[in-house]
Amino acid sequence: MDLSYFSNKLTTGLDSLHYGDQPTALYEPIRYIMALGGKRIRPLLALLGAHIFTDNLDPVLKPALGVEVFHNFTLLHDDIMDQAPLRRGQPTVHEKWNANVAILSGDVMLVRAYELFFDVPAHLLPTILRRFSETAAEVCEGQQWDMNFETETEVSIAQYLDMIRLKTAVLLGFALELGALLGGASATDADHLRQFGVGIGLAFQLRDDLLDVYGDAATFGKRVGGDIVSDKKTFLLLTAQAQANANQQAVLARHIGQPVLSAEVKVHAIRTLYDELEIRPQTEALINSYFQDALQHLKRVEAPETRKEPLLQLALQLMDREQ
Amino acid sequence: MDLSYFSNKLTTGLDSLHYGDQPTALYEPIRYIMALGGKRIRPLLALLGAHIFTDNLDPVLKPALGVEVFHNFTLLHDDIMDQAPLRRGQPTVHEKWNANVAILSGDVMLVRAYELFFDVPAHLLPTILRRFSETAAEVCEGQQWDMNFETETEVSIAQYLDMIRLKTAVLLGFALELGALLGGASATDADHLRQFGVGIGLAFQLRDDLLDVYGDAATFGKRVGGDIVSDKKTFLLLTAQAQANANQQAVLARHIGQPVLSAEVKVHAIRTLYDELEIRPQTEALINSYFQDALQHLKRVEAPETRKEPLLQLALQLMDREQ
Repeated sequence: MDLSYFSNKLTTGLDSLHYGDQPTALYEPIRYIMALGGKRIRPLLALLGAHIFTDNLDPVLKPALGVEVFHNFTLLHDDIMDQAPLRRGQPTVHEKWNANVAILSGDVMLVRAYELFFDVPAHLLPTILRRFSETAAEVCEGQQWDMNFETETEVSIAQYLDMIRLKTAVLLGFALELGALLGGASATDADHLRQFGVGIGLAFQLRDDLLDVYGDAATFGKRVGGDIVSDKKTFLLLTAQAQANANQQAVLARHIGQPVLSAEVKVHAIRTLYDELEIRPQTEALINSYFQDALQHLKRVEAPETRKEPLLQLALQLMDREQ
Repeated sequence: MDLSYFSNKLTTGLDSLHYGDQPTALYEPIRYIMALGGKRIRPLLALLGAHIFTDNLDPVLKPALGVEVFHNFTLLHDDIMDQAPLRRGQPTVHEKWNANVAILSGDVMLVRAYELFFDVPAHLLPTILRRFSETAAEVCEGQQWDMNFETETEVSIAQYLDMIRLKTAVLLGFALELGALLGGASATDADHLRQFGVGIGLAFQLRDDLLDVYGDAATFGKRVGGDIVSDKKTFLLLTAQAQANANQQAVLARHIGQPVLSAEVKVHAIRTLYDELEIRPQTEALINSYFQDALQHLKRVEAPETRKEPLLQLALQLMDREQ
């Protein structure tokens, strides 16, 4: 079964969501951010997780969209905190309206996200709501760590990995767990799928860090080198800081936390340093390690391999390893 | 049964709530705002609503506190939007920390509020969560209307009353409905109590508007005349604008929407105008009308009058009509 079958289901579902009408200043920003697009990875994971166990995806659609509404709520509020001017090439909500509108329409989005879970079968409702809430709190924790790291001088690689696990990976894990539970999976299989999702999420985020430095501007969609220019403490920078010799520390000291005279010069200097330290293969090795661990969890799910095919296909796409 | 019996239960319950530990920048602000105090009216209403039907209040405590956590979440985010420096005489969260911390710890408070409902009996869970979510969205709508009204020139009295219904009254109504449902009330009785709560909420908010102009500084707790100085479109001002003759319109035009040279002069001028137009007795009549309608709903609840006593006592206290 082709991935487009699942994507089309999602698009139809998204189009039929109703967030509210009045006051328009509250609900228009929700329609706006939800219409900006994106790959809809999280609800897709929920549908693909359910597909492993059932052909009836209709009951999975609304909760799957709940995850997408929640994700967009976090983007909306994160954009205020990061003072981001653009989201997917369009003005962010706090730029197009204002910060107050962005705060409040975000709040009501979180409420609407919860509402999309309330139709799940009664016996699953408490579990799903508890797991969703735990995950939602973890995502907030991840965002707070991320903000903390901006001003902290000492961030360990372990702390960074935990931050991206909370901020990004656990929600991918929850989406899969949700789909699995709604598809009728055992608790064990649902947890394997959750762990598969977390692993994919970690690998995906590290890949994003890598593409920021080594990506192709045309396909990456963001400005290459943006993390370097902004001194973002990514896995690459933290690893370089941990492994640099005295000369290399001097290069870092000259560029990190200093006013940027030329972005081009800075990106070139740091990238050269990364090359010397072989940061790229080290990052690729970690990505691969998370990815292989994730695949082990998928393997252990008790279902025919053909049912897992579309999910595997999406995971490979995300890793840019299309077969 | 004395109101302090219920208050003490709440205090113990509040003290035992755990919001989270790390990162502290996320969870410390929650403990801070929850410790600022307040009258805890909403969870008290939930306990008193349940008390009408049962002596076993233990299962009501956590959901009742959910309403209080939600209420404080709205205060936290409203304070950012209103750029309020103080809350209950202490620095607001965005002042003590910063706006980002206030946004994010507010978000996680909303999640924690939801979590406090998840232990209710399974057969009530969907209803309670749906009603809570509807109410939560309405409170956001009320806040957005309130912000809209600041810059709108034409606000009708009906629009204002609808705004305070959404922003304040529906949550008091939900608290009572919640308590009633958990206490074992019929759907009809739970709805009567909800309507009682909404009526009390409307009366309470209008009384607050009145106290801002005619209150005693010592007991009101806020600066008397604050609404007048800030041109807040309260029921009093909107009624005055609707009823003023040409001369009185001129007085309004001289003071409303103009730079304030002397707060004292402005408050005196507007209050004199209110006196001429008999705004105070008109407001008192409307408060009384809401209060009497509310009492009719309480009367229709099928339970012994003695069980309703503590709730009636709280309502009278809120209206400053202690017997």
